[in-house]
Amino acid sequence: MDFDSLFNAQLDTLKAEGNYRIFANLERHCGDFPKARNHSDGADEVTVWCSNDYLGMGQHPKVRQAMKDAIDKCGAGAGGTRNISGTNHAHTELEGELADLHGKEAALLFTSGYVSNWAALSTLGARLPNAVILSDELNHASMIEGIRHSRADKILWKHNDPEDLDRKLAALPANATKIVAFESVYSMDGDIAPIREIVEVAEKHNALTYLDEVHAVGLYGARGGGISEREGVADRITLIEGTLGKAYGVVGGYITGSEALCDFIRSFASGFIFTTALPPAVAAAAQTSIAHLKQSSAERTQQRRQVARLRAALDREGIPHLENPSHIIPVMIKDPVKCRQIADILMQDHGIYVQPINYPTVPKGTERLRFTPSPLHTDADIDHLVHALTQLWKQCALARAVA
Amino acid sequence: MDFDSLFNAQLDTLKAEGNYRIFANLERHCGDFPKARNHSDGADEVTVWCSNDYLGMGQHPKVRQAMKDAIDKCGAGAGGTRNISGTNHAHTELEGELADLHGKEAALLFTSGYVSNWAALSTLGARLPNAVILSDELNHASMIEGIRHSRADKILWKHNDPEDLDRKLAALPANATKIVAFESVYSMDGDIAPIREIVEVAEKHNALTYLDEVHAVGLYGARGGGISEREGVADRITLIEGTLGKAYGVVGGYITGSEALCDFIRSFASGFIFTTALPPAVAAAAQTSIAHLKQSSAERTQQRRQVARLRAALDREGIPHLENPSHIIPVMIKDPVKCRQIADILMQDHGIYVQPINYPTVPKGTERLRFTPSPLHTDADIDHLVHALTQLWKQCALARAVA
Repeated sequence: MDFDSLFNAQLDTLKAEGNYRIFANLERHCGDFPKARNHSDGADEVTVWCSNDYLGMGQHPKVRQAMKDAIDKCGAGAGGTRNISGTNHAHTELEGELADLHGKEAALLFTSGYVSNWAALSTLGARLPNAVILSDELNHASMIEGIRHSRADKILWKHNDPEDLDRKLAALPANATKIVAFESVYSMDGDIAPIREIVEVAEKHNALTYLDEVHAVGLYGARGGGISEREGVADRITLIEGTLGKAYGVVGGYITGSEALCDFIRSFASGFIFTTALPPAVAAAAQTSIAHLKQSSAERTQQRRQVARLRAALDREGIPHLENPSHIIPVMIKDPVKCRQIADILMQDHGIYVQPINYPTVPKGTERLRFTPSPLHTDADIDHLVHALTQLWKQCALARAVA
Repeated sequence: MDFDSLFNAQLDTLKAEGNYRIFANLERHCGDFPKARNHSDGADEVTVWCSNDYLGMGQHPKVRQAMKDAIDKCGAGAGGTRNISGTNHAHTELEGELADLHGKEAALLFTSGYVSNWAALSTLGARLPNAVILSDELNHASMIEGIRHSRADKILWKHNDPEDLDRKLAALPANATKIVAFESVYSMDGDIAPIREIVEVAEKHNALTYLDEVHAVGLYGARGGGISEREGVADRITLIEGTLGKAYGVVGGYITGSEALCDFIRSFASGFIFTTALPPAVAAAAQTSIAHLKQSSAERTQQRRQVARLRAALDREGIPHLENPSHIIPVMIKDPVKCRQIADILMQDHGIYVQPINYPTVPKGTERLRFTPSPLHTDADIDHLVHALTQLWKQCALARAVA
């Protein structure tokens, strides 16, 4: 059988829709973030405007040094699964740091945020008696796949709507184990959930709360504990999930919660048990980054300044963007082909790299450019970006927001 | 609701069965592998006998240097998903190295071997028309979960039995897209599949072949291309999957195959799309390790010598172990509690660390100690291990193999 023709048929459909993805091939310049060398078509040197290394911690001297020291001390990899020779002291130290970050008894590391959501939700849904997972309708793919894998009953509730959640919880039978799964900062629209109201509704119905803070940890709360820290409700949430790959600048995911909860996931989650542990050097780098952002707010303060500055400049030029209270600035294009064209022009003519965001990352018809200003984007970088966008908006005669 | 009591109830069952896992908390000593500092109970300094860093490449000076250089050049993390700013030149270079390793057109990196199996099999099973996955009954958890997630029809065939596979393929309807999923080296028994026969049966029935080589890459074949290289059948296998976390000593997983196949998985696999890319430094370290083991057979040769030496010594002392043609030496205990006790004594009294392998990693009743001699275990290390085991066998009066 000609399998390639089966593969190509589906790829051709993607291409016809404008949803085929071309990855920019970059080389980040340490010490020069957000600049990077571009190995793809377009300018040789670009300013990256769509990184999730939100605070530039990936190039922080302390983080790099911790990673290099751990390599010299322990080598490149962990050498096994957590159970079979792969647990290194750096992992348990990091888990202690994470438990402290969220004020929880314990934490458990995973190879990625995706795996932490997938493994934790699939284990909870599969093993708790009569589990019903109530999932915000805009939850991330990793949560959706975890819920699907659990084969528990799933109920979607309206995005960020505690009243709808309340109605749906009230309709469940008394013997159901209710799990409410939601995020704090939604990465593509940048909106922030009313997590206090959600927690209160969940408590009223004796539901377990599962909060994904991957786009918030390091960025919100006095110590970077996320929206749950900022709102003072972390202690009322059963499980807080986060990542080491965004604001902390490294890679990996985790959950935090009670000792029993973490031990339960540790003992039963296939995606935790049967996989090689993260390199000790990754754990050491992440721990250094977290510890730094517990103490230092300078990065968060400067990021907020640059986010506000870019928003104000876009408003001034009448370039429409989704309003939200976070650090994420989506400029809606609503067409996959135009979105790609604009991104290509920005890359080719202006040395600006922003990836067009298309299906399946966002629903079809909501394609966008998603800008994430960091503390390391200068005022000149912002002026350059806004100037380029203004030129483009004029040339393309795209609809402007009403002045 | 008291969720902790739900968690504890299931943990108590594990404990009662002797299947509750306690991780050894180690600190690997670079330059001194397989020695490690032990932060758990027992000896302060241990010799690790169960690592999957099979060749000690995790501490290789070239690998460490490549990793540190990449950190200085590009920082700690990738900064995004592969699509959204996370593709670094080091990733594409590594993918080229991997394609070359297996003589394939293309390769695709994943955050782990687990994720590569889960994501690739779930995507193939879900998206190919009328897919039926024929899975060796002893396939790894990551393959099982991927097949389950795909919701494709699944048929188990007898372990390493091409005749049974032939019968089961013959019984399928003509319009089925048949996927034959199997491993080369099975990690817990250390047996090696008759992959040429399996490939021939699959070809006869026009089936796609999916081969997991995670316990073989770096170790078998003149360039470390695995059993498929050694047997000269790599070009006849549709997809070869492997890991960067075992013989290559780092972390991460991959698939190789045709351009169309890799592009298909790249474009549709949730577990590839929605996750932060591996750190460029991890990719650089892995590439260096692969390139080294393409050129150098010294590590493989010395490993084989030490494996043979340990086997001969065990035979001499009458300590029963599973015969197999690989580098994995399982000593069967067949009881979870005894297995843990023996491992504890080895750790406490002899400074020997070998993790007891219990359910769910192996079926209940087949608990074992699993030894993986590396080229860096000295003859003295082997003598020390065999002496300790001999003492224990005498004390515990465990059944010995017939002399």
